[in-house]
Amino acid sequence: FWLPAISAVRTMSSQTGPTPPFSTLSVSRPVNAVTHVELHRPEKRNAMNRAFWSEMVECFNQIALDSECRAVVVSGAGKMFTAGIDLMDIASDVLQPGGDDTARISWNIRRIISKYQETFSVIEKCPKPVVVAVHGACIGGGVDLITACDIRLCTQDAWFQVKEVDIGLAADVGTLQRLPKVIGSRSLVNELALTARKMYSDEAKSCGLVSRVFPDKDAMMAGALELAGEIAGRSPVAVQGTKINLIYSRDHSVAEALDYMATWNMSMLQTDDVMKSAQAAMEKKNPKEVPFSKL
Amino acid sequence: FWLPAISAVRTMSSQTGPTPPFSTLSVSRPVNAVTHVELHRPEKRNAMNRAFWSEMVECFNQIALDSECRAVVVSGAGKMFTAGIDLMDIASDVLQPGGDDTARISWNIRRIISKYQETFSVIEKCPKPVVVAVHGACIGGGVDLITACDIRLCTQDAWFQVKEVDIGLAADVGTLQRLPKVIGSRSLVNELALTARKMYSDEAKSCGLVSRVFPDKDAMMAGALELAGEIAGRSPVAVQGTKINLIYSRDHSVAEALDYMATWNMSMLQTDDVMKSAQAAMEKKNPKEVPFSKL
Amino acid sequence: FWLPAISAVRTMSSQTGPTPPFSTLSVSRPVNAVTHVELHRPEKRNAMNRAFWSEMVECFNQIALDSECRAVVVSGAGKMFTAGIDLMDIASDVLQPGGDDTARISWNIRRIISKYQETFSVIEKCPKPVVVAVHGACIGGGVDLITACDIRLCTQDAWFQVKEVDIGLAADVGTLQRLPKVIGSRSLVNELALTARKMYSDEAKSCGLVSRVFPDKDAMMAGALELAGEIAGRSPVAVQGTKINLIYSRDHSVAEALDYMATWNMSMLQTDDVMKSAQAAMEKKNPKEVPFSKL
Amino acid sequence: FWLPAISAVRTMSSQTGPTPPFSTLSVSRPVNAVTHVELHRPEKRNAMNRAFWSEMVECFNQIALDSECRAVVVSGAGKMFTAGIDLMDIASDVLQPGGDDTARISWNIRRIISKYQETFSVIEKCPKPVVVAVHGACIGGGVDLITACDIRLCTQDAWFQVKEVDIGLAADVGTLQRLPKVIGSRSLVNELALTARKMYSDEAKSCGLVSRVFPDKDAMMAGALELAGEIAGRSPVAVQGTKINLIYSRDHSVAEALDYMATWNMSMLQTDDVMKSAQAAMEKKNPKEVPFSKL
Amino acid sequence: FWLPAISAVRTMSSQTGPTPPFSTLSVSRPVNAVTHVELHRPEKRNAMNRAFWSEMVECFNQIALDSECRAVVVSGAGKMFTAGIDLMDIASDVLQPGGDDTARISWNIRRIISKYQETFSVIEKCPKPVVVAVHGACIGGGVDLITACDIRLCTQDAWFQVKEVDIGLAADVGTLQRLPKVIGSRSLVNELALTARKMYSDEAKSCGLVSRVFPDKDAMMAGALELAGEIAGRSPVAVQGTKINLIYSRDHSVAEALDYMATWNMSMLQTDDVMKSAQAAMEKKNPKEVPFSKL
Amino acid sequence: FWLPAISAVRTMSSQTGPTPPFSTLSVSRPVNAVTHVELHRPEKRNAMNRAFWSEMVECFNQIALDSECRAVVVSGAGKMFTAGIDLMDIASDVLQPGGDDTARISWNIRRIISKYQETFSVIEKCPKPVVVAVHGACIGGGVDLITACDIRLCTQDAWFQVKEVDIGLAADVGTLQRLPKVIGSRSLVNELALTARKMYSDEAKSCGLVSRVFPDKDAMMAGALELAGEIAGRSPVAVQGTKINLIYSRDHSVAEALDYMATWNMSMLQTDDVMKSAQAAMEKKNPKEVPFSKL
Repeated sequence: FWLPAISAVRTMSSQTGPTPPFSTLSVSRPVNAVTHVELHRPEKRNAMNRAFWSEMVECFNQIALDSECRAVVVSGAGKMFTAGIDLMDIASDVLQPGGDDTARISWNIRRIISKYQETFSVIEKCPKPVVVAVHGACIGGGVDLITACDIRLCTQDAWFQVKEVDIGLAADVGTLQRLPKVIGSRSLVNELALTARKMYSDEAKSCGLVSRVFPDKDAMMAGALELAGEIAGRSPVAVQGTKINLIYSRDHSVAEALDYMATWNMSMLQTDDVMKSAQAAMEKKNPKEVPFSKL
Repeated sequence: FWLPAISAVRTMSSQTGPTPPFSTLSVSRPVNAVTHVELHRPEKRNAMNRAFWSEMVECFNQIALDSECRAVVVSGAGKMFTAGIDLMDIASDVLQPGGDDTARISWNIRRIISKYQETFSVIEKCPKPVVVAVHGACIGGGVDLITACDIRLCTQDAWFQVKEVDIGLAADVGTLQRLPKVIGSRSLVNELALTARKMYSDEAKSCGLVSRVFPDKDAMMAGALELAGEIAGRSPVAVQGTKINLIYSRDHSVAEALDYMATWNMSMLQTDDVMKSAQAAMEKKNPKEVPFSKL
Repeated sequence: FWLPAISAVRTMSSQTGPTPPFSTLSVSRPVNAVTHVELHRPEKRNAMNRAFWSEMVECFNQIALDSECRAVVVSGAGKMFTAGIDLMDIASDVLQPGGDDTARISWNIRRIISKYQETFSVIEKCPKPVVVAVHGACIGGGVDLITACDIRLCTQDAWFQVKEVDIGLAADVGTLQRLPKVIGSRSLVNELALTARKMYSDEAKSCGLVSRVFPDKDAMMAGALELAGEIAGRSPVAVQGTKINLIYSRDHSVAEALDYMATWNMSMLQTDDVMKSAQAAMEKKNPKEVPFSKL
Repeated sequence: FWLPAISAVRTMSSQTGPTPPFSTLSVSRPVNAVTHVELHRPEKRNAMNRAFWSEMVECFNQIALDSECRAVVVSGAGKMFTAGIDLMDIASDVLQPGGDDTARISWNIRRIISKYQETFSVIEKCPKPVVVAVHGACIGGGVDLITACDIRLCTQDAWFQVKEVDIGLAADVGTLQRLPKVIGSRSLVNELALTARKMYSDEAKSCGLVSRVFPDKDAMMAGALELAGEIAGRSPVAVQGTKINLIYSRDHSVAEALDYMATWNMSMLQTDDVMKSAQAAMEKKNPKEVPFSKL
Repeated sequence: FWLPAISAVRTMSSQTGPTPPFSTLSVSRPVNAVTHVELHRPEKRNAMNRAFWSEMVECFNQIALDSECRAVVVSGAGKMFTAGIDLMDIASDVLQPGGDDTARISWNIRRIISKYQETFSVIEKCPKPVVVAVHGACIGGGVDLITACDIRLCTQDAWFQVKEVDIGLAADVGTLQRLPKVIGSRSLVNELALTARKMYSDEAKSCGLVSRVFPDKDAMMAGALELAGEIAGRSPVAVQGTKINLIYSRDHSVAEALDYMATWNMSMLQTDDVMKSAQAAMEKKNPKEVPFSKL
Repeated sequence: FWLPAISAVRTMSSQTGPTPPFSTLSVSRPVNAVTHVELHRPEKRNAMNRAFWSEMVECFNQIALDSECRAVVVSGAGKMFTAGIDLMDIASDVLQPGGDDTARISWNIRRIISKYQETFSVIEKCPKPVVVAVHGACIGGGVDLITACDIRLCTQDAWFQVKEVDIGLAADVGTLQRLPKVIGSRSLVNELALTARKMYSDEAKSCGLVSRVFPDKDAMMAGALELAGEIAGRSPVAVQGTKINLIYSRDHSVAEALDYMATWNMSMLQTDDVMKSAQAAMEKKNPKEVPFSKL
């Protein structure tokens, strides 16, 4: 039943601008088995409007089921990664949710927040690893987005801002929940979230928010695609099992996570990919040359 | 019923030395909406005596309820931050707790430890962000204290020591529980806790224990107050909700924390602060200029 | 009933090569109260064969009960730390586990994985702190091993590789579960686990995987023994209680861990070591000079 | 956007047989604000075929959003509640899921199980209380279904059977997870799940699986509708908040659940329903007479 | 510092009516080592007014520290156990909490709910077992109260009502959190909480809410005091350790609870009470005759 | 390596009295695929002495690996099930554990308790279902034992006593941890554990501790073996997966347990047993007639 959707993804792969059904995302396949999702409202600094929130869900649900895709790159079109939430577009939704009394208004707001949270949680639920490449500004909702990705890269000129306190609210679609588990300095996490100050690429690298900094966007995109290509070239059984178990580990004790891992691998080790990979290793071949079955 | 206590805090704000009811703390309001709590037994190197343990609880309970206060700075008077527990003063309490047999002695020791743990847990339970500024030595109980604060700053000459193993015990009022969640290198945490070696400011910065190092105490205090002022200038609904949810996130899975966040914000987004902040943002005003209601 | 085993450890302490009952480990006592466990199949690059998996369990169970031992150093003999799992030796075990249908094969694989996980979990369950010293390559199973140790050191020429995706599987004996809790950059953890790229000593230091880098193996071994000696010189009640509670903290909320700590210390504070240590401190003696009772 | 769906539900309310879009469910509104969902494949003993699994999800998602509905009754058409999974229809899906090797087949099976689990989890996620009324047989998947409902009623002739071990598998869509939290005798839970023996209505009552037994189906349906009517007559803010927090409590410690409850009610207490209800109580009116706003 | 408070309790023990400092509770010592706390506003059907909420906390905090007390009985004066919350008295507190906007009102409501929750949580935190004896009505807040007690008894004419949905709110001071863990039928819990129907003593007994039913209040009070006396006659180290670990078990996995228990008993087994009790057992003496030390 | 042990079990199956290597247990195979473990120190009322604690572990570890065994029955030889711990034999172990100070004594006690806890935890870890059949007295350690079993049966004359408070200690080898999760009335659990009163078979049945009561021991043993035979006759993949997941569910939230279940069954559904069972069902055969492969 989702086949048409997937073929939509495939058809799109030769396109560069936003196409139906997405008005805020551009989806392509620049490298074999790698899907590139580009935030694509450059004239609006890739601000996240109402369409964006549902298109992200649809897009990543498609990717999760697209057996041609084994790794994903996310980046932003135009001058910056994203200016964050498009307040003008979203305001009526969040700030005037309707309801006959405070309880009912609250009820509706909670439903909206949950829906928005889901927009970034789909990135985590998608078993294909997601590399995010940030240039220029990454503000507010942008930080929520990138903390839900698996690997973070940026350019020299990139900066990050947990903007929410500046507009009178606590960040509620992922930053406060994921950022402390993404970087190792709690003092820094608190400072960023409580003061809304900008953090530049060098500090982002030294605190571990990003694992690599590139001189400019071209270099970064090349690096991101190469990195995604490396991942896509390996056994999808190994790669996707790794992502799923890494996320499981974050949220569980070591003992729980070991038990889950053993239960996971009792079937996954029965893949032909192990023999194929082992043979390739003995023959000094690159894993990319191994013809793994689809997953 | 706590109004007198609050007014006590307010009156104190023009004081500089320790005043009743506190013999070990000096409390002032150096900057609008910022409470400065100074460990104030300089002649005893701010060692934590019996009075200290209950005064901290009383002080932070007052601060939690003081709607004039939106951020806190903690520092030490005199030559160092703190030499840690005042063993001489505390010994009879902890080491000779009384009881007719081992079980009853244990029972009493447990009650005392729990009470001492509460001394630093009040810092976390207080919804106002706490910036701690360390100069010189921060030993033993001092590390327990600062790991319960939200943002850590220090001077170039600061050093930190998890001292407890040197006196024959496992650190039991917070360091072993919070330090691993405060910095990102588990190897370092273990080394510090198992060997009681000193860590100097540069390593404290590079491992993320502190987020900034200042050349001297004056510069640090200016920086701390400015930082606290930045926080105090923002919407207290946003700031305090952020602190509460950051701490919740530390102790829960991402999914749990997202659910709690949505439930939290379903009411908190209905604050006038969002509109006030958004308007200020559009008018390019500093958040500090926005007249937020008290919380 | 395990007394013979312990005396075996003691006898071994003057040996340097592998002795019965261990064919893959060399166990010695180079420094008072410090046990040195050396991976000792240098001609096979210390690859982990079937014997290794059970010998590690036996070895660390003995150490756990050896009251003469207060700290452990683990290192590798020969040119590198370890090349990881000895696939040739292990393959028949893991890859052809037997069973009449897929369910039964899975059942058997799960039992094997659990057994292998236990090989490294014994390091954590052993209450004596374990310092691991890595030189040259640390591949695959080697990373599983070192993340279960308490303190990590390495030489300038060391490198680390989460190798498993390259052979078609998700790392299932500890790396995916412990690495994210050992270092502070989640982006880096994911990158290492998903691409199997090598990480060199400088990056290992800056990300916090190791807490110190030494110019060569001799310097590192001297440093490791000195560090272990520092730990071994302190009260075993304090040191082992610290290790147990640090591991407990990793897997629990702060509130839970504080409660456990208070319950732990209600008896452990009733040790003579506190008075002995305090007296030594007042007399400016080194803790190592204090004659603590065995634990 | 879901308005059409809701109106579909409403239109359906005058129907009695299965109508588009549902081929296995009959949905009606027999009593004000109560939705009746009837398993409706009587000629197949309401066996759960492929269509059923997705229709349940669609149906309860609609109900969750249907502000006209405040309580739900689920029952079965024909001679029994349900014979459980329609193995013939489902077999190709579950037992021949496709995939090039064991790992890939496992991957696909896991996706299918998760989808089937969701079929009953939607009942829990739907905030409107669900009363289930069982007559005759309730077998296999039927037990999975009813344990996800809030209140269970049955007729004198009802019997229940955790059938799965009889067909060579462990029950995987909810029974093993929910049944132990639904009734108070663990010995009985284990006996039922391990032997697949039938349990009759009297034992179901005495062990607490059902809270009431009725002489026949007519009496039960009348009782179920009256019970649902009682619930539907009360404040939806109170009722739905109660369901959500009862389920939260099941899966959390008391302290966690109290914290969540306080955070929930900080907005929900600001409903006009409290004043309306209190006034009705003082005037000795039935809550049903109070005109609550929609939720 | 709490000595005066305790002596107050002791002095009170010869009183029967409410005395200072409590206006809503009557505290006495009817049996050696047993404290009787009576809800004592009979003319108001023991409705819980503002004074009650803080007096309960004060009272149980005193009891927790009163080494003369080893068990507690709670009952109600007059015609019934309690009519629940005194809405008239409490309304201004909860329903008009003040605050400049919805967020601030919510903030204040949350603080009030937390305070009210604490009123019953103190019963759980008090390590002395609490037997509650219910006659006549036990409504709303009364159910919150009794579910926080350890053992529940009632008279033949007792009835219980989770009243909250009838006044437009979800029960937020303990019923929804504790009732599902107190009785074994989830269907019944949900029915009671969602419909506010009355449950009479026979159903309360068969579902396990109470463990014994007595013909009338006199018989029940005699039974309650005898039961409390039995508990008070045993080793307080054993009894209070049992209560603490039973509550810990409720909120943790079996493995976690076993670990905590072992850590607890490593000191508590070193009590003289074991030898005293064992000797009494061998001499066929009643445990009550053993002179245990105070705890 | 455990083959000898298993063959020992097999050889034993024609024995009726205690044989080497067990001095306290008699192990036999009265029915195909059912192992009968009898507590066998009838002259000492099956009191649990030092030998017992290690023999239970050895025995159940053997059973876990014995593919001929698919279900277990545990009962007691002689006049009663068990009088509980053999205090005389055990006392020197637990009460005089040695150690130079309180901390070291505590350390040793904790190790002993953990070892004793393991004695009953092996019953849970053994994936074969365990039916326990109780006649006469089941005291102290006996309750710890039976709460770790899966299904509990008893005779009319059976009684149960949580004895520990009577000898001055909190039950620390399982009762306080498991009993509250085994029966549905928390009031009753607390009463039993705090007063050490006897509970007779009828109350044991009505509270759900046992699921069936038999008139005498012969009838019970016949019933137990028949029940175990029913279980042993079904697919071991289904049965043992059911036990493992039921225990997992007890200690996790429903969502966690569903996830684990799906991960478990993604391989286990690929068993031939499903097809064999389904076919047998269609042919109206008893599952016992199906020739399942060993597990």
